[in-house]
Amino acid sequence: MIDYQLIPPILGGAGLLCAFFIYMLVMRYPPGEDAITKIGDQIHLGAMVFMRREYTMLAMFAAAVLVAIYMSPLGTNTALAFLIGALCSATAGWLGMIAATKANVRTATAANTEGAATALAVAFYGGSVMGLCVASLGLIGLGSLYLYFGGDAHTAHAIHGFGMGGSVVALFSRVGGGIFTKSADVGADLVGKIEAGIPEDDPRNPGVIADNVGDNVGDVAGMGSDIFESYCGAMIASIAIAATFTASETQTAMMFLPLALSSIGLIASIIGIIIVRARSGSEPGQALRSGTIGAPVLFVIAAYFLIDGMGIERGVWFAVLSGAVGGILIGLITEYYTGGVPVKKIANSGETGPATVMITGLAVGMQSVVLPVLFISAIIFFSTQQAGLYGVGIAAVGMLSTVGITMAIDAYGPVADNAGGIAEMGGMGKETRDITDSLDELGNTTAAIGKGFAIGAAALAALAIIAAFVETVSINKPDFSLELSDPMVLVGLFIGGAIPFLIASITMTAVGDAAFEMIHEIRRQFREIPGLLEGTAEPDTARCVDIATTAALRRMLLPGAIAVVAPVVVGFTLGAESLGGMLGGGLLGCVLLALMMANAGGAWDNAKKYVEKGNLGGKGSDVHTAVVVGDTVGDPFKDTSGPSMNILINVMAIVSLVIAPLLSSS
Amino acid sequence: MIDYQLIPPILGGAGLLCAFFIYMLVMRYPPGEDAITKIGDQIHLGAMVFMRREYTMLAMFAAAVLVAIYMSPLGTNTALAFLIGALCSATAGWLGMIAATKANVRTATAANTEGAATALAVAFYGGSVMGLCVASLGLIGLGSLYLYFGGDAHTAHAIHGFGMGGSVVALFSRVGGGIFTKSADVGADLVGKIEAGIPEDDPRNPGVIADNVGDNVGDVAGMGSDIFESYCGAMIASIAIAATFTASETQTAMMFLPLALSSIGLIASIIGIIIVRARSGSEPGQALRSGTIGAPVLFVIAAYFLIDGMGIERGVWFAVLSGAVGGILIGLITEYYTGGVPVKKIANSGETGPATVMITGLAVGMQSVVLPVLFISAIIFFSTQQAGLYGVGIAAVGMLSTVGITMAIDAYGPVADNAGGIAEMGGMGKETRDITDSLDELGNTTAAIGKGFAIGAAALAALAIIAAFVETVSINKPDFSLELSDPMVLVGLFIGGAIPFLIASITMTAVGDAAFEMIHEIRRQFREIPGLLEGTAEPDTARCVDIATTAALRRMLLPGAIAVVAPVVVGFTLGAESLGGMLGGGLLGCVLLALMMANAGGAWDNAKKYVEKGNLGGKGSDVHTAVVVGDTVGDPFKDTSGPSMNILINVMAIVSLVIAPLLSSS
Repeated sequence: MIDYQLIPPILGGAGLLCAFFIYMLVMRYPPGEDAITKIGDQIHLGAMVFMRREYTMLAMFAAAVLVAIYMSPLGTNTALAFLIGALCSATAGWLGMIAATKANVRTATAANTEGAATALAVAFYGGSVMGLCVASLGLIGLGSLYLYFGGDAHTAHAIHGFGMGGSVVALFSRVGGGIFTKSADVGADLVGKIEAGIPEDDPRNPGVIADNVGDNVGDVAGMGSDIFESYCGAMIASIAIAATFTASETQTAMMFLPLALSSIGLIASIIGIIIVRARSGSEPGQALRSGTIGAPVLFVIAAYFLIDGMGIERGVWFAVLSGAVGGILIGLITEYYTGGVPVKKIANSGETGPATVMITGLAVGMQSVVLPVLFISAIIFFSTQQAGLYGVGIAAVGMLSTVGITMAIDAYGPVADNAGGIAEMGGMGKETRDITDSLDELGNTTAAIGKGFAIGAAALAALAIIAAFVETVSINKPDFSLELSDPMVLVGLFIGGAIPFLIASITMTAVGDAAFEMIHEIRRQFREIPGLLEGTAEPDTARCVDIATTAALRRMLLPGAIAVVAPVVVGFTLGAESLGGMLGGGLLGCVLLALMMANAGGAWDNAKKYVEKGNLGGKGSDVHTAVVVGDTVGDPFKDTSGPSMNILINVMAIVSLVIAPLLSSS
Repeated sequence: MIDYQLIPPILGGAGLLCAFFIYMLVMRYPPGEDAITKIGDQIHLGAMVFMRREYTMLAMFAAAVLVAIYMSPLGTNTALAFLIGALCSATAGWLGMIAATKANVRTATAANTEGAATALAVAFYGGSVMGLCVASLGLIGLGSLYLYFGGDAHTAHAIHGFGMGGSVVALFSRVGGGIFTKSADVGADLVGKIEAGIPEDDPRNPGVIADNVGDNVGDVAGMGSDIFESYCGAMIASIAIAATFTASETQTAMMFLPLALSSIGLIASIIGIIIVRARSGSEPGQALRSGTIGAPVLFVIAAYFLIDGMGIERGVWFAVLSGAVGGILIGLITEYYTGGVPVKKIANSGETGPATVMITGLAVGMQSVVLPVLFISAIIFFSTQQAGLYGVGIAAVGMLSTVGITMAIDAYGPVADNAGGIAEMGGMGKETRDITDSLDELGNTTAAIGKGFAIGAAALAALAIIAAFVETVSINKPDFSLELSDPMVLVGLFIGGAIPFLIASITMTAVGDAAFEMIHEIRRQFREIPGLLEGTAEPDTARCVDIATTAALRRMLLPGAIAVVAPVVVGFTLGAESLGGMLGGGLLGCVLLALMMANAGGAWDNAKKYVEKGNLGGKGSDVHTAVVVGDTVGDPFKDTSGPSMNILINVMAIVSLVIAPLLSSS
């Protein structure tokens, strides 16, 4: 019996080896001339400084949570799982970060010396390491815990702690990273471009390294931890739901199925990565697309045989299918709203000034929630018709199983973006810049799809965790019900709905405040370092990284604490019914705000780029000034507050699931 | 038995007489010189043109709904109630509108010839007619129907049709009026102030009459229909919930209680109006406040003896108390966010340009939802602890019973605002303008409180209607339950949450599009009418009113249709469970967006006014340019999309309640 349960962690180990192998491939490419290497090193070291500081703070926060769990009736097992979850997620972020920051400079050099195909390959390799690390470490960690705890109903609950560990890391990486990246971006742009009048990514700007570091910590490490959380959350929730079924051979199979699906998803992802590599000589967009589509298709086919072979009903496979298809569709809608007609409409509205850019962009963002929400509803409807609440969990697993390649393509974006920045800073010339620009543009599209996908996945994963929460509470409290007409549920629903608005407000304000500290420091350096503007002296870029780090980490504590503490407070004061209602309201609020903010932000960003390409008067025109306002508002929308919503709901859900046994025994 | 049931309609009749008497008081004041009278007439006629066109379209829409109801199994009784509800609401709007547009010019003249105290009295009288009409016609209509249908369980359900009638009127008045007022405002300002370089409210501007008309149709008629809907909705819901109780003497008393409470609320309101009048010689803010606080205090005291006298448990009185106190508290929070520290914060953020004004304003708006939502939760918690779901309905009734004075103070604002406009257009000199400005400023504060109150009231009323919906469905379908973990409920919840975002998006876009048509027409007149800018020719103001009317009414059909049709479609295709979930999600989404949009909009508006008073560089400074952008975005937020949310959720809820018997029999 034990043998097949060994497969997930072993496959995870193999995935890590693949990641290491790809990392070695990246390192075989030359980092370039000394000046270029130096810029690359600065970004790499800056990113590592941020990661180290972030992880130090995270370690303290996690230690406090760990002690709380250990002291609670949840005990050693949950505490152990929590620790392993946090370690796995943190390690994935760390490794992915090293690879991404090594790949960016090599991508720039490859673009300079070898051309687009090689540059694409290097950038994609860089992202692939992150993708494979997320998928592999998830499988290793969760697979091992399952092996250790899964067989026994008394210990199986401990696995939830793993999800909570991953969530706490995500909280720091995504929220902290989000504040860092945007405050650095805004600070560098404002003082450099507007006040000092030097171009973007100019090496004289003390904030420019921090800006590039931000792309990595926000979009690579932050996104990775976000996806890791959803990926493991979906598996944990499905296992938890299956655990409440009556014991039987099928039940055992259904408990193990999420891990099995993710295992074949990892294999499909590795094949997808090979496909992209093999086709990277052809049109880059085509190459990436063949991998993004190829891997899920392979996965869904393999899943059919797997489910059939495990003796599980076919309905479960349909749930897998609905998740996999739904994820792609939600991504495509996001691509439309952040790249299609709506973007031109926003740009056109710039002719009547910034106010209409704001109104149009907000209207686009609000409208853009409708279709994804209908698709999520359709997935819920379809998957539960096929396999009950377990179906929702499995649909989420289906959406997230090929995370290896999805995340690889996501992380490719910031690597290409960084390569462009390095090419600019290193003065590599127009031809190289054209290559990196085209790679970057492609990255923006993939990033938009990735963001939509991440929201859909987070929503389904959270929903599955909430379902698991309900089932877990019900075990000891058979009359437990979440009636919408129960006042306690309603009260929870309202509180839950307000929390996303509160967190969005706090994080948006945090970006502004942290940017203010950056602005202050960059101004100081321009003022106090003689010869800086003339290019005869060097800026103290490390200090800017340091200041943005401190500012970001200090400001992420409040939203982080709210996310972790709110479910505990509501659960133990108002009760499990209110907590359930709160999760429902929170889920709804988070999904709606996440979609609105991500899509409005993405659309504003691309409206600006559309104008900068020379449309409607191009750079320097009044329309440009108007769309720049939109982009500035969109920055914290799409890169800080919006993505925080994914984390928020998952943290609240997983904390609730972890404390569920304590609530139901009261 | 029948005698006491006659009291509400009779009191309603007495209230209408009071309103007529106050109207005569207004008419005793002189409209002023010929030029002034002419401006007043133009606004009055413009408003009446809008109302006539709106009501014509409304009549067609209502006729279609009427036929649908009549043909459905709901039959004649519900159709009759629907018709009466629509007529009562429309009549209240019509009468209030006449009074308001007669009072504005008389306020201006009183400010010019008699001073602040008289001007305040006239403006307040003008608003009082609207307030008393809303309260009285609600009592007459609902009281008569109760008399006619209430005694029999088979016919009592027909009363719900009354609420639906009021809701359909509100849909047109609030959404159509909201689009009208902001498109006229934006159009007149953009072409007049910016392109032609003439001051605001300059009589040469062809759009200026439409702008002033807009204040009346949006803030008087629109707000009135909104409050009417909540007022009657709360009573209907409480009656419906009480109707599901086991028959007993107490049950009969509890069914009648909402009407009885509103009856004493009307008396308290009339006393409040007298208090304000008596104190209008003292500080104006003090005078208004003594009425706003005095009436609810009187009401709550009287309610205690009423409930005690009717033999109903004391807990019900506590529910009344929680609603009355909660309404005031929510209003005060709104006042803080749209007038306190947050406004200065937004203004200060103007120093770094329009983008930071947007970010800060959005953050303020998002943060501002938290406390009101917690208060709403507290009211739900407290009132249901005291009296079950019936308590929520009664809390809403408690909040809304003194609607006569609340609405009077609300409607006072636009009258004072219009008086200022007329003083400007009529060239009445600085002293008069100072008086109207101070009255207007006071009006802005009361309007902010009124908006918060309206949202809180709409939320509670909608919740009560939803509770009534659940109870009504349960009668024929005893196993009906709205479990949050039921996939059908979840699907509904998601759909319901997305609808407010869709409607907000549509209405925001509608303002922009309608404004565009206005801009086109005003530009045409400046171009084609010789001597217009020189003041030797007259603008065709009626045509501008006509264009704004057509544009607004055409664009309100889509959101209106969605609001009415969505519950029917979801109810009959996905079932009662999904419809219940949709109402839950819709309620949450509407409340959150309504608060965010109203408060962000109000805060932006006041940040602009703060700068225009000379702070941070005053008019013409860069900060001013930045805060003007905020105000322009805030306009559709606070006057179109935000208020539409109140209507949206109430329309969806009441339509669901009306079709509830058809759903449960399936």
